[in-house]
Amino acid sequence: MKIYDTALGPFPARVRIAIAEKSLEPRIEFVPIDLLKGEHKTATFRDKNYSGTVPVLGLEDGTFISECVAITRYLDVLDGMPTLTGTTPKEQGVIHMMTKRAEMEFIEAISIYFHHATPGLGPQVEKYQNWEWGIYQRDKAFAGMRYFDSILRQQPFVAGDFFSMADMAVLGGLIFVDHLDVEVPTECYTLSSWYKAMQERPSVKNRVTMFK
Amino acid sequence: MKIYDTALGPFPARVRIAIAEKSLEPRIEFVPIDLLKGEHKTATFRDKNYSGTVPVLGLEDGTFISECVAITRYLDVLDGMPTLTGTTPKEQGVIHMMTKRAEMEFIEAISIYFHHATPGLGPQVEKYQNWEWGIYQRDKAFAGMRYFDSILRQQPFVAGDFFSMADMAVLGGLIFVDHLDVEVPTECYTLSSWYKAMQERPSVKNRVTMFK
Repeated sequence: MKIYDTALGPFPARVRIAIAEKSLEPRIEFVPIDLLKGEHKTATFRDKNYSGTVPVLGLEDGTFISECVAITRYLDVLDGMPTLTGTTPKEQGVIHMMTKRAEMEFIEAISIYFHHATPGLGPQVEKYQNWEWGIYQRDKAFAGMRYFDSILRQQPFVAGDFFSMADMAVLGGLIFVDHLDVEVPTECYTLSSWYKAMQERPSVKNRVTMFK
Repeated sequence: MKIYDTALGPFPARVRIAIAEKSLEPRIEFVPIDLLKGEHKTATFRDKNYSGTVPVLGLEDGTFISECVAITRYLDVLDGMPTLTGTTPKEQGVIHMMTKRAEMEFIEAISIYFHHATPGLGPQVEKYQNWEWGIYQRDKAFAGMRYFDSILRQQPFVAGDFFSMADMAVLGGLIFVDHLDVEVPTECYTLSSWYKAMQERPSVKNRVTMFK
């Protein structure tokens, strides 16, 4: 299998953590995509992923699977023993819900801030920017961090008692924050100490350090 | 089980179609939420779903599951025989990918247009609007429709050979378009005729008519 991504990205980090959790690294060939040069926005890349985003998983049969949730679910069920995306209907439902919530309220919000209210990936890539929307989404991300902080005061992981795809989405958001001129609000000390603890997790460790 | 939603909504339609596909209607109590009065943005409702969106599924044990993908996956695996979200790793990956793509490139884009570049749900609900972003997302939705039109020229359903969660997301987008002052581009005749054919599908029929 091939993963088209960049080592330095919060969305790639989500999938790289999943790959490490599932001990799939020996089966993956990583193909670097140059985001600063806009390689992910070229017609060639868009043939693999219409949305022009990384990461993308390339299967042996020529199928391309994009989107972190889709790739994570694929990798998680390859061995027939899902550990990251849930087993029972309720586990699966809650993990998908919390993952989508982490996307909307945090990682995608902070991503919009990056692409619209900062220089983002530079003028070659950021053809259209909406500064006001970027700031609005940054504030949404702050609110999202307060929400996930409140969740982590009640339970050890974002979707409950075990590490899941939802944690990877929140970790992606925190990795993004690390990279930008924003900070986790000081009152979110549970979220901050959770992030620190997560960085000691073997699957997370290198993926976060790499980004810094 | 309870579904908190409104009969007149593209996102609720996605889940109502799933409920019909799985013959689960007798097990569901529908609880109407008044979107025009902003009931989904109240603190009471946000206790069920932080994001303040419908639909939300309420389980007997007090758990609330929001987000169409999460609810659909929950309902689809309740009987242990998923038909809408895939069985093999590849099926699941591709269905999740195409669903997320339909969300980003179509239904969520047209939803942002509705909430930001039209009166949306009215001044009581739309506290902040960004007209330019709304128009940008409308144009993104047009491009998305062209993309899904090209997909449906190659295969009978959005994620391949069978009706899935991804079709529900595209149907949600088309239902939204029906409700607004925009139209499916004339060159997307495959998408339009697919939509017409889908409206004859028993699970879809009433859910679309209801909206009109």
